Amino acid sequence: MTDELSDSTPQMLDDAALDLVFRAARTHSKWLDKPVPDALLRQAYEIARLGPTSGNCQPLRILFVRSPEAKEKFRPALSEGNRAKTMAAPATAIFAMDMAFYELMPRLFHDPTARSWFAGKPAAIEETAFRNSTLQAAYFILAARALGLDCGPMSGFDKEMVDAAFFAGTSWRANFICNIGYGDRVALHPRNPRLAFDEACLIK
Amino acid sequence: MTDELSDSTPQMLDDAALDLVFRAARTHSKWLDKPVPDALLRQAYEIARLGPTSGNCQPLRILFVRSPEAKEKFRPALSEGNRAKTMAAPATAIFAMDMAFYELMPRLFHDPTARSWFAGKPAAIEETAFRNSTLQAAYFILAARALGLDCGPMSGFDKEMVDAAFFAGTSWRANFICNIGYGDRVALHPRNPRLAFDEACLIK
Repeated sequence: MTDELSDSTPQMLDDAALDLVFRAARTHSKWLDKPVPDALLRQAYEIARLGPTSGNCQPLRILFVRSPEAKEKFRPALSEGNRAKTMAAPATAIFAMDMAFYELMPRLFHDPTARSWFAGKPAAIEETAFRNSTLQAAYFILAARALGLDCGPMSGFDKEMVDAAFFAGTSWRANFICNIGYGDRVALHPRNPRLAFDEACLIK
Repeated sequence: MTDELSDSTPQMLDDAALDLVFRAARTHSKWLDKPVPDALLRQAYEIARLGPTSGNCQPLRILFVRSPEAKEKFRPALSEGNRAKTMAAPATAIFAMDMAFYELMPRLFHDPTARSWFAGKPAAIEETAFRNSTLQAAYFILAARALGLDCGPMSGFDKEMVDAAFFAGTSWRANFICNIGYGDRVALHPRNPRLAFDEACLIK
């Protein structure tokens, strides 16, 4: 890892790199029979964790569901339409948020008052945990793609059931979930339309 | 733009590309005197919009604050610590969410019932707009970096004041804000620490 831009750092990504991370990347539901080593999930996290969060609060926690036992615990919480593809995925990330994230802020942020912005303030905790764990999950999805993996993010599942099955007695709460593997491009449908710049953006 | 992986699409990003988007990229507060053309903001949006959202709902809306007049409207809503750097930034994105996003779903998603998942259901609207506009804002931040820009995301501002100043009478609501420009790396402090994989992740 480097923390400095070197002379070899490009001014911008080339077309092939933009294709890999954004333009040719797609949400997948069918998975190739190609193993996903734990080391690659670790590598994706170690890239994604460098992305910005407010006050460096880093509320994202990830439970990677991989074993048959964990998949069976997960199965009843999945919506009908998300069940088969999730059971078949090499890994599923449960993107969670640690509602006690602020207890770590004295170590993570240079302002020693940071913990007091949240302690005893449930609305601030909820908003900050939700926004920042979601940002970090997006960084993870793009980091996984940057490493050649494919993702299938989903919000169709029962959060309370996931929390009860995996996070009982902890401060972790489910946010959304994401299948991870090498997608079968043959199974893809055409991409759904996107909003044009002038529909979604204003310059003032 | 290509929607297909070609033979030239890399298996993964090389080190220099990972540095540009994740590893050497930093949150910036000081800006070089180098112009940011509107066309580059448009290009960043057109890459970021390809990222996944649930039901392809795309609730993100962006107001780019650029003119002296818009900056003056924006100024009173900024927290003290975010004011000077924001006034000096070449552009500031107000990442907003369209609370009427579901009205477009019949056009954006292949399931004709999608609008009914949200119409008249304020809790579902709020959660989906917040989660998905945040995901899209993260895609935008990384897309801007991929084009060589630097970002400085912030949540220290008065959302009600921004909504009143810019979005009165519309269905847009502020989520968070982000300065955009070419950052001055000389002004950077050392990066704050990140949580290790074993602190934030579990494999089961």
